[in-house]
Amino acid sequence: MLTRIDHIGIACFDLDKTVEFYRATYGFEVFHSEVNEEQGVREAMLKINETSDGGASYLQLLEPTREDSTVAKWLDRNGEGVHHIAFGTADVDGDAAAIRDKGVRVLYDEPRTGSMGSRITFLHPKDCGGVLTELVTAKGAEGSEDPHSH
Amino acid sequence: MLTRIDHIGIACFDLDKTVEFYRATYGFEVFHSEVNEEQGVREAMLKINETSDGGASYLQLLEPTREDSTVAKWLDRNGEGVHHIAFGTADVDGDAAAIRDKGVRVLYDEPRTGSMGSRITFLHPKDCGGVLTELVTAKGAEGSEDPHSH
Repeated sequence: MLTRIDHIGIACFDLDKTVEFYRATYGFEVFHSEVNEEQGVREAMLKINETSDGGASYLQLLEPTREDSTVAKWLDRNGEGVHHIAFGTADVDGDAAAIRDKGVRVLYDEPRTGSMGSRITFLHPKDCGGVLTELVTAKGAEGSEDPHSH
Repeated sequence: MLTRIDHIGIACFDLDKTVEFYRATYGFEVFHSEVNEEQGVREAMLKINETSDGGASYLQLLEPTREDSTVAKWLDRNGEGVHHIAFGTADVDGDAAAIRDKGVRVLYDEPRTGSMGSRITFLHPKDCGGVLTELVTAKGAEGSEDPHSH
């Protein structure tokens, strides 16, 4: 069950410049930054608010680290802008399987590692009204929909 | 001060079909729907979660009601997808003025009426790294940053 907007992923050519734009314009600060070699991105997470499911909503600023990454190719086609949106769930495996059963293409066979140790997968934008859609289970949040697990 | 991701605005050709996609795929229900004649859109708000500032985060699904609306022109250029992102604030007037003073173009001289009686304005995407960015003060939330107003 998807219980929050986890983040909005924004692709940019220059991460440091974009981080500075969000800080100077809105006062948003970097909560976390990392390089995800598998995804081919350098990223900064700006925490915007906490959410009623015990999680939080972020802006995720993404700069490609190599020319063959999907974000680099996307930037070549589209220029800077919103790259994807992400919904948070306590059960990315179960939700991805249920959504696949409804005929939506899920891009990974098994969830991969996302920001801050989360487990993530993506849905094909052509099956989602043009929106590249990510599902995220935050690290430590697995199964937190089950009240007996607390 | 921007205190939440208020919504993600998604442009579509067929609102009913898109509402049904979000319901059938994720279980998201329509919280509110309306026509905004000034913006030239028919829209549905899907409430995803509540936020730590006392507001909420929504998906806003937008279908143009006339060919000369900005959303219709955007769809012609881009096809369906994420049209804009919106941050919530208790003071859209003050925040818009402060952001204009930093050199970011604000598209309206005065905030206009948005979803559910909110007051909104937009920032020029070319000044925001390709992201059309909306600022929103929810109806009844004006000045709620001031603890003395409660």
